[in-house]
Amino acid sequence: MKILRVDMGERSIAFEEEPESYQKWWGRGLIAKILTEEMDPTAEPLGPNNIFIVTRGPLAGTGFSSSGRVSVGGKSPLTGGIKEANAGGNVGEFLARLAIKAIVVKGQAPFGFAGVLVVDEENARIEEAPELKGVGIYQTADLLRQRFGDSALVLNGPAADFKMNVSAVMCTDREGVPGRAAGRGGLGAVMASKGLKAIVLRPVNKKVPLADEEAFVKARSELNKYILENPMTSKVFSTQGTASMVNTMYHLGGLPTRNFSHGQFEKADNIRGTTLHQVITQRGGAGTTGHPCMAGCLVRCSNIFPDPDGKEIVRALEYETLVMMGSNLGIGDVDAIARFNRACNDLGVDTIETGAAIAVAMDAGLWKFGDVTAVEEALEHIRAGDILGRVLGAGAEITGKVLGWHRVPTVKGQALAAYDPRAVKGMGVTYATSPMGADHTAGHTVAFKVDHHSPEGQVDVSRISQVKRAAYDVLDLCSFLFSATAEHTDKIMELVNSATGSKFGPEDFEKLGRECLLMERDFNARAGIVSAHDRLPEFLYRERLQPYNLVFDVPREELNKLFSRL
Amino acid sequence: MKILRVDMGERSIAFEEEPESYQKWWGRGLIAKILTEEMDPTAEPLGPNNIFIVTRGPLAGTGFSSSGRVSVGGKSPLTGGIKEANAGGNVGEFLARLAIKAIVVKGQAPFGFAGVLVVDEENARIEEAPELKGVGIYQTADLLRQRFGDSALVLNGPAADFKMNVSAVMCTDREGVPGRAAGRGGLGAVMASKGLKAIVLRPVNKKVPLADEEAFVKARSELNKYILENPMTSKVFSTQGTASMVNTMYHLGGLPTRNFSHGQFEKADNIRGTTLHQVITQRGGAGTTGHPCMAGCLVRCSNIFPDPDGKEIVRALEYETLVMMGSNLGIGDVDAIARFNRACNDLGVDTIETGAAIAVAMDAGLWKFGDVTAVEEALEHIRAGDILGRVLGAGAEITGKVLGWHRVPTVKGQALAAYDPRAVKGMGVTYATSPMGADHTAGHTVAFKVDHHSPEGQVDVSRISQVKRAAYDVLDLCSFLFSATAEHTDKIMELVNSATGSKFGPEDFEKLGRECLLMERDFNARAGIVSAHDRLPEFLYRERLQPYNLVFDVPREELNKLFSRL
Repeated sequence: MKILRVDMGERSIAFEEEPESYQKWWGRGLIAKILTEEMDPTAEPLGPNNIFIVTRGPLAGTGFSSSGRVSVGGKSPLTGGIKEANAGGNVGEFLARLAIKAIVVKGQAPFGFAGVLVVDEENARIEEAPELKGVGIYQTADLLRQRFGDSALVLNGPAADFKMNVSAVMCTDREGVPGRAAGRGGLGAVMASKGLKAIVLRPVNKKVPLADEEAFVKARSELNKYILENPMTSKVFSTQGTASMVNTMYHLGGLPTRNFSHGQFEKADNIRGTTLHQVITQRGGAGTTGHPCMAGCLVRCSNIFPDPDGKEIVRALEYETLVMMGSNLGIGDVDAIARFNRACNDLGVDTIETGAAIAVAMDAGLWKFGDVTAVEEALEHIRAGDILGRVLGAGAEITGKVLGWHRVPTVKGQALAAYDPRAVKGMGVTYATSPMGADHTAGHTVAFKVDHHSPEGQVDVSRISQVKRAAYDVLDLCSFLFSATAEHTDKIMELVNSATGSKFGPEDFEKLGRECLLMERDFNARAGIVSAHDRLPEFLYRERLQPYNLVFDVPREELNKLFSRL
Repeated sequence: MKILRVDMGERSIAFEEEPESYQKWWGRGLIAKILTEEMDPTAEPLGPNNIFIVTRGPLAGTGFSSSGRVSVGGKSPLTGGIKEANAGGNVGEFLARLAIKAIVVKGQAPFGFAGVLVVDEENARIEEAPELKGVGIYQTADLLRQRFGDSALVLNGPAADFKMNVSAVMCTDREGVPGRAAGRGGLGAVMASKGLKAIVLRPVNKKVPLADEEAFVKARSELNKYILENPMTSKVFSTQGTASMVNTMYHLGGLPTRNFSHGQFEKADNIRGTTLHQVITQRGGAGTTGHPCMAGCLVRCSNIFPDPDGKEIVRALEYETLVMMGSNLGIGDVDAIARFNRACNDLGVDTIETGAAIAVAMDAGLWKFGDVTAVEEALEHIRAGDILGRVLGAGAEITGKVLGWHRVPTVKGQALAAYDPRAVKGMGVTYATSPMGADHTAGHTVAFKVDHHSPEGQVDVSRISQVKRAAYDVLDLCSFLFSATAEHTDKIMELVNSATGSKFGPEDFEKLGRECLLMERDFNARAGIVSAHDRLPEFLYRERLQPYNLVFDVPREELNKLFSRL
């Protein structure tokens, strides 16, 4: 497979055949492989020695459901460790049609340079695009389409121009709307620090070749059956979207509310999945649930949230945003949250980290919880890049340090996602130990049949989940397949073999996950992130979470066993 | 010896006899001993599980020159590692007269509590003092004297009320002026986080007992001879003060100028030690050089800097301030620098970290280098505790992160002191490897007879200096004795034995230094600070420093050998 290598310092571009040792790796795994082998883990995240990577999975473009996610990676300015973030949309598919496995960007253009990497079937080039600096994501996409025609886009926004840690990498969806965020870890700032504002992937009108089409079709149809038979993947996601989690977390008493000070939100009804479905379908117009972000998706968790007149506000309004820019700010106005979401997308920022930073500022007394206007102002500060905007844009941990506030929900410098770890302790274990920092996708545990309030067995649950989730990320399969395909990962490996000609065995699915985690741990250890950093902030051990009176009480010695028993 | 133990959470106080294992330790060594044994190194620096310590040396109050420094310690909110900072003045002597070896403060009062720990010969108590919140250091000292009478004071200022990382612990000098800063590492914020605004040590009209007065007098007179015979300790310091270093660093091409962008300052003449001496003596009035900060000091490096009318602006105007709030901001107006210094003292902030943060902000374009008004404004922002003030108050590293600026001269989160490590490479090794972060006092190398521009042998030079400096800090002897006593540390140990009845041998001086460093390294390792963090910022490896065209080029493998060969 081809790797497109770009040096923004030299302004050079080369297509290379991947080395043999990279062949089995894709997505998050390829990122771990390249970063552990090709960079000094102590390099400064926003300096020339970091590497920015865009890659995809082996099934992208094959038409298999949920297989076209795109992974971006590099050393995170937020955590100081290795980072992979992935998103849906059409970038994975476009990379596959271009027969490119990864784009690897090194070096650094002179300060202030704003470039676009344009890739088509024949070649790739860097063009200057100073007009994109400071321009919102939606307008950036329009400008790029005018200049280069319809393309899949990988973008960073105005926040990344300021090198803000909250900066996401934004990607286009099936319809070319740049609302799919590879949100976490500040990778938008890493991309921007290279002098790269956008990657434009031009369409290729060719099918992605399959090594064994017959075997592929057979394996795919079996997997499709599991997907269509499972209530989550066939129904819940396509009606409620990820917002179905609001109800679950409310009942567990772990729905982050007012900067993690309560586990239930009195206005939770307003943001529940069922409510969201009702509002969207009643308003109609552009609004829809069951929207696929990528071609061929059977799960269709995405939605388009319309205003009362049916005009699109944002796609997709998701659980993490509903909580981190909603209940955790004391806000239950779903229209306001949708507007925040659109503004965050346009700024190119992670709604989790940005919401968490605003929540810390509210908790510290800068604004009142529940104040919609304050959030709008906060986002305008970020857009303006003034001092307050830059503080918030530096993320929750720095916001807390600047304001001298002690209730700061971060691990390794990155904000907790929308699950209070006192009520879902397996998630707390993941937050504490994942090489990614406090990242829900790194080892989601809510679906496990355990007593989430008990500290017992949570390390095992998190370990199982972290390995499996890492495997999904290596293959850049959407983890929402999980409930349908968890027991059929042998079939997934067959599908991969039939598509690419690889020789994976059934046990290789989890092996990829384990090996990926070990590479990431190795990178982090050499970057100076060690087991002392595998812990939650102290207030979660001390402050009791109501209504179930919970603290986080998984002992640290237990946490330290997670990876020693991998 | 007695240890005064205070729990600000329980509001409890107890005098305890020190355990046997603590007996040989004083100052920086006792801090390392207590912190490694009594606290979890992963504890949050501003939380209840950090420990704030005030201690002194074995010769405090004995009348031996330069022996009365006070050490304060705790886990640093700036570096996340162990921190000891020490200061001159009268606190060490007062502790000795009270027969107290250390004050150890644990726990945390409820948020917003402002207490004063009052210690007299009979007992100790905590009194509330809400009127001190937000009040400048000078007025705080006045208020405390009005309430409690003349006392030695350990204070934190308005910056610490905001939990700013630049917060120093301020101590009174011989005349009760609170201008002696235990500046580095944000320990003022640690003290304030306990709910403690001030420690008031009441005078005791008793001599400090000596174990063997005859031997003491004999050893002291020998050491005094060395001090009085040495040109540095007998003349240079008492006329030029520490500002004598300006000339040295200018000629080495390592005088930090405009955020470490040049090694010589075109207005260096204005801030040289000889100029300072001339200005002070010409103006007269309150102004003086050769001012002793503590009783009995023969070195007398301190000064009182007067305005043109002879009225005191600040005491003492020192090298680090002249550079970090002078040349490194592009400012050569010594009156302005003296005013900045007074304002910093009154805020209770470290002039090094504060100056470095302002320099980063200037470099990032927030103000122009050389703008005196901008610095005055910056200090007013810190006093107001507004967002910009809090960013600067968070220190140089966070200022850089917030502003998205890449030229940030910090190690382990703490700003480099006033020596460019590209021109004094041994100092660079100390900055990179010291458990204290980039701290000049931790292993000063300028006086070594080596080629400071060459990378060769600098690790050895730094190691030797770090061990010796640690030993001076353990004994809370002023390191300015160094040039006179470097070859007579056996005599120093004799003096300690004669004062306290200890049985140290001549080799124990360096042994104390080595063991102290090892304890500190152990604390840091358990706090998650490992050899990956023993490095300088990348721009010092990349940007050539003029006029001598230097980069920092001591290989990392060499740095890693420093402690492995301790």
